[in-house]
Amino acid sequence: MIMMKPVKQMDVKAGMSANELVKEMAGSGVMGAGRIAKAVEIAEAMIKQKDCKMFFGLAGAMVPGGMKNIIIDMLKNHFIDVLVVTGANLTHDMVEAIGYRHFQGTPNIDDKELNTKHIDRIYDSFMPNDVYEGLEDFFAKHFDDLAKEKLTIKEFLWKLGSIMPAGKPSILRTCFEEKIPVFCPAIADSGIGLMIWGNLAKGKKIEVGVFDDLKEILSIAWDAKHAGVFYVGGGVPKNYIQQAMQFSPNSAEYGIQITMDRPEPGGSSGAELREGISWGKMSKQGKFVDVICDATIALPLIYAALKERLGKRN
Amino acid sequence: MIMMKPVKQMDVKAGMSANELVKEMAGSGVMGAGRIAKAVEIAEAMIKQKDCKMFFGLAGAMVPGGMKNIIIDMLKNHFIDVLVVTGANLTHDMVEAIGYRHFQGTPNIDDKELNTKHIDRIYDSFMPNDVYEGLEDFFAKHFDDLAKEKLTIKEFLWKLGSIMPAGKPSILRTCFEEKIPVFCPAIADSGIGLMIWGNLAKGKKIEVGVFDDLKEILSIAWDAKHAGVFYVGGGVPKNYIQQAMQFSPNSAEYGIQITMDRPEPGGSSGAELREGISWGKMSKQGKFVDVICDATIALPLIYAALKERLGKRN
Amino acid sequence: MIMMKPVKQMDVKAGMSANELVKEMAGSGVMGAGRIAKAVEIAEAMIKQKDCKMFFGLAGAMVPGGMKNIIIDMLKNHFIDVLVVTGANLTHDMVEAIGYRHFQGTPNIDDKELNTKHIDRIYDSFMPNDVYEGLEDFFAKHFDDLAKEKLTIKEFLWKLGSIMPAGKPSILRTCFEEKIPVFCPAIADSGIGLMIWGNLAKGKKIEVGVFDDLKEILSIAWDAKHAGVFYVGGGVPKNYIQQAMQFSPNSAEYGIQITMDRPEPGGSSGAELREGISWGKMSKQGKFVDVICDATIALPLIYAALKERLGKRN
Amino acid sequence: MIMMKPVKQMDVKAGMSANELVKEMAGSGVMGAGRIAKAVEIAEAMIKQKDCKMFFGLAGAMVPGGMKNIIIDMLKNHFIDVLVVTGANLTHDMVEAIGYRHFQGTPNIDDKELNTKHIDRIYDSFMPNDVYEGLEDFFAKHFDDLAKEKLTIKEFLWKLGSIMPAGKPSILRTCFEEKIPVFCPAIADSGIGLMIWGNLAKGKKIEVGVFDDLKEILSIAWDAKHAGVFYVGGGVPKNYIQQAMQFSPNSAEYGIQITMDRPEPGGSSGAELREGISWGKMSKQGKFVDVICDATIALPLIYAALKERLGKRN
Repeated sequence: MIMMKPVKQMDVKAGMSANELVKEMAGSGVMGAGRIAKAVEIAEAMIKQKDCKMFFGLAGAMVPGGMKNIIIDMLKNHFIDVLVVTGANLTHDMVEAIGYRHFQGTPNIDDKELNTKHIDRIYDSFMPNDVYEGLEDFFAKHFDDLAKEKLTIKEFLWKLGSIMPAGKPSILRTCFEEKIPVFCPAIADSGIGLMIWGNLAKGKKIEVGVFDDLKEILSIAWDAKHAGVFYVGGGVPKNYIQQAMQFSPNSAEYGIQITMDRPEPGGSSGAELREGISWGKMSKQGKFVDVICDATIALPLIYAALKERLGKRN
Repeated sequence: MIMMKPVKQMDVKAGMSANELVKEMAGSGVMGAGRIAKAVEIAEAMIKQKDCKMFFGLAGAMVPGGMKNIIIDMLKNHFIDVLVVTGANLTHDMVEAIGYRHFQGTPNIDDKELNTKHIDRIYDSFMPNDVYEGLEDFFAKHFDDLAKEKLTIKEFLWKLGSIMPAGKPSILRTCFEEKIPVFCPAIADSGIGLMIWGNLAKGKKIEVGVFDDLKEILSIAWDAKHAGVFYVGGGVPKNYIQQAMQFSPNSAEYGIQITMDRPEPGGSSGAELREGISWGKMSKQGKFVDVICDATIALPLIYAALKERLGKRN
Repeated sequence: MIMMKPVKQMDVKAGMSANELVKEMAGSGVMGAGRIAKAVEIAEAMIKQKDCKMFFGLAGAMVPGGMKNIIIDMLKNHFIDVLVVTGANLTHDMVEAIGYRHFQGTPNIDDKELNTKHIDRIYDSFMPNDVYEGLEDFFAKHFDDLAKEKLTIKEFLWKLGSIMPAGKPSILRTCFEEKIPVFCPAIADSGIGLMIWGNLAKGKKIEVGVFDDLKEILSIAWDAKHAGVFYVGGGVPKNYIQQAMQFSPNSAEYGIQITMDRPEPGGSSGAELREGISWGKMSKQGKFVDVICDATIALPLIYAALKERLGKRN
Repeated sequence: MIMMKPVKQMDVKAGMSANELVKEMAGSGVMGAGRIAKAVEIAEAMIKQKDCKMFFGLAGAMVPGGMKNIIIDMLKNHFIDVLVVTGANLTHDMVEAIGYRHFQGTPNIDDKELNTKHIDRIYDSFMPNDVYEGLEDFFAKHFDDLAKEKLTIKEFLWKLGSIMPAGKPSILRTCFEEKIPVFCPAIADSGIGLMIWGNLAKGKKIEVGVFDDLKEILSIAWDAKHAGVFYVGGGVPKNYIQQAMQFSPNSAEYGIQITMDRPEPGGSSGAELREGISWGKMSKQGKFVDVICDATIALPLIYAALKERLGKRN
């Protein structure tokens, strides 16, 4: 007969730590709880694995969603070796770095009224539209410096990180300071892209090649003795890492994906990680988990448990 | 301008308690994290509210999913005044009470093979099919006692609870011991129903009226000075409580719903709680939150934070 | 190598019939389109199968959602041999039969305002709250007749069907007229239940046994040479049919399920049909399809193609 | 009182055309069916609107999903004035253009076995891995020509379209032939990107600027007297069009979105179109609809009805 481990009914106690809670989830071992527990186990194994490169894909409105400091903490701890991210998250990171904030809002509101009040809605978070003035001023001031030599997107982003105002936590700045490669293939599709466009429209020039980062991310993947992937959301960040895995001799041995997208419609964002085995993106011997959960719930819970397990390392 | 509270980026620390984590989610205040935090706040307010009846609806495979002990703990603490539940959850509760277990499985398996091995699959949990033999023996032994007088479904369930073997945690037994009304309008739609059918098929008789509990649940709702609702999943449990609220002078002032169903297809299970305001099920001044999350993640996290806040009460 | 059929890119032409469109979907054969096409094929095979009993489960707000006439048409054509349904759908059917209507609304509205205007919201459909007065009058007039003898739920529903006003299309009336067994295990959980409660509260009595239909549905399933299941939504209707299949010597050989619920959280409503094979609910040689789609889109499309294929039979 | 239009129960007849079916959906007017009908109405109005630029965003595995010919037909009819697309869809389009096929598969399979057989899985469609050899040969042959001058991504894609083998329907070739601007901001994130990388790795060079298309798409948006948007899936294509709308004097007056992503987690892909009003992406007087449906079901149905309405134009 199939060897089976019983579902241990979870016990919840006042004052239990995030990791103690996740251990109860591991005891249960099924459905969403079981997957959260498995994600912590895989993340721990990936970090403890010698010579393992961890590729982290970040999509969705994660800065407006309050996840910025967790990403920065992961970067500072070098739990992330390569970051692939949407332009929107970098724009929102810049927005906060140059002094603006996101706000708690609601979706049950008249968007016409918000427009009149110059408030941009991101589901239930609000952003004042005047952030674009701040971004314009910033890019007006720094454009010539950013554009003075031909750059890859990664070089462009590190340069951007290097000029982020000090004193405010920033993903971009942290990537620069920690020398963590940050890729954003669709950088033109973002507020940052729009700011560059504003300067191009004034007749200025900038040379950033769309294909030029491929050599770097593929080299990192190619040279990695071991590789792990961690996806918060899907989109370009996930796919860009997946294709680096596909074309490398060693595919990913560890994988965590947090998503609310469904697999059935066939898109990459909702695809189960096991599908990657067929492509050679994921190792046949790999350990993977798909966490079907809002990332603003799953990521903090997983990360709190993980930090507790890793203890003194932090 | 609209008064706005900034999104505080969440800080996650090693060793933080579940409640400390939820407080960070409250600081962020948006998306899934914000809703988890709001659920804890509403649950706390509901419990601290004097003369507030808490109606709890339980649907989905929550016993195979490892949630049994949390429900029992809530019942023992009288955080639940009225339980409405699916027959499946009561059947799975009985299954464990009479000595069987659920097991950790996987959905990536050939169901034909499972059938050959007499294993019933509930997504990624497994149940040995021989539980039905145990249930048959139990009902063969107790049917005459259960059927000796005309009962409401609630009375039937309390009686069932009273004969659950001691020593195993049981929702049914706890409801009986704590004298908490437990309703299961669709009791016939369950393993328990099938066991009754088995005895009816042998020519035995039982009299349990399908409409007879309505007086009791409506009376409780009618007499409640304050009412709160807590839904884990939708289905009959949610709707049965909602209709009691609709026909009572006081509608629900507190509401928490944990669901993965979508609102757009129009079903009751995925309906946002605010919709209930139009019907008079929810109070216009009520505090509600829809937590879009797998219940096996959200419920333990919410409950761990809640227990910590309520402290010595437990 | 695995034998593989190519995906034929769909061609869409002006004036094509619903069935021609579905044939293009069959040519593509993948994702949602492929599943719609497979559903039509399975439905056609099930109807053409000699001695096949078709069990139809109906959940979700399908009468407010405009699906009533399709269900009635299926009943009249005897494409449905056994109907299992939620109390809400029967209530909404009665509401229209006694002269009320549902209305096109919107979810982007203040539910407090709707409440003040006595409009009940079902996502984006509206129902005037005064339907309850109509229902009260109806049950006041007919209660004594309905309650004069002990009935099963099915007998109660046929009796209700028999007194529906003529001239308005009605699911209940059609079931009575066509002598199609209609089961509603959770009938107490509905507007109909509330109307009965109103009369019980006045001291009247009615005897309808909660377990008494089990013999009839199990007998039908037991005696069926072949069985097919068709689920629109999940909930009690799906589960009640599934358990009849489980305890019958012949499990379902044909299965169609239309749902927007996800499988991962573990509930019955979102469970893939193949899971039923492990339980013995579905035949190992059966043909099944899970259509992940809003039922108000999928059902009319499937049914229009099906009617065209069956041709003269209608 | 709120003016309300009744829900007309849908009537389905054998042989009805796709448009007749959609008209029944319009009569119902609610839930998914109502949204399909509204999408057809908006698409028709958008096409009939004089001087209206139609921006079409295409994401998800739509070529493996059988939607290629529909997109080509829309391009040839100039129902699409600007196409923004993922690199994956362009890669799959090339794959078919150079002679390969996608195949009907299943998700219920061992991905390790697929890998051994060199079959790549895209949910339930399969692609033989040897397509990459074909792509390599193609790019080996054409790289020098593609790379001989500095290009924008659009120019690169038109050039690619111009050398697609004749005789096979192709999105890329049609865009080139019909002179329809096609943008793919994340082109590096695709099989096409990988082929370019393969040549860069051999020491070759290509100059395609990541920001250089922004001027063109913003100019088109800026100059449009009227604008409409049509999104199949979210991701970069949707967001790139949305930001062009945001920075133009005239925002979108027409909008259709087909998606299965949820709005609650806050990502752009699942965001309701009305959210765009707050940003100035959508006009306050605009007509929008979010169709919550698998695109391989919704798009053919909408397009078949639309073609029938437009009649002789095709």
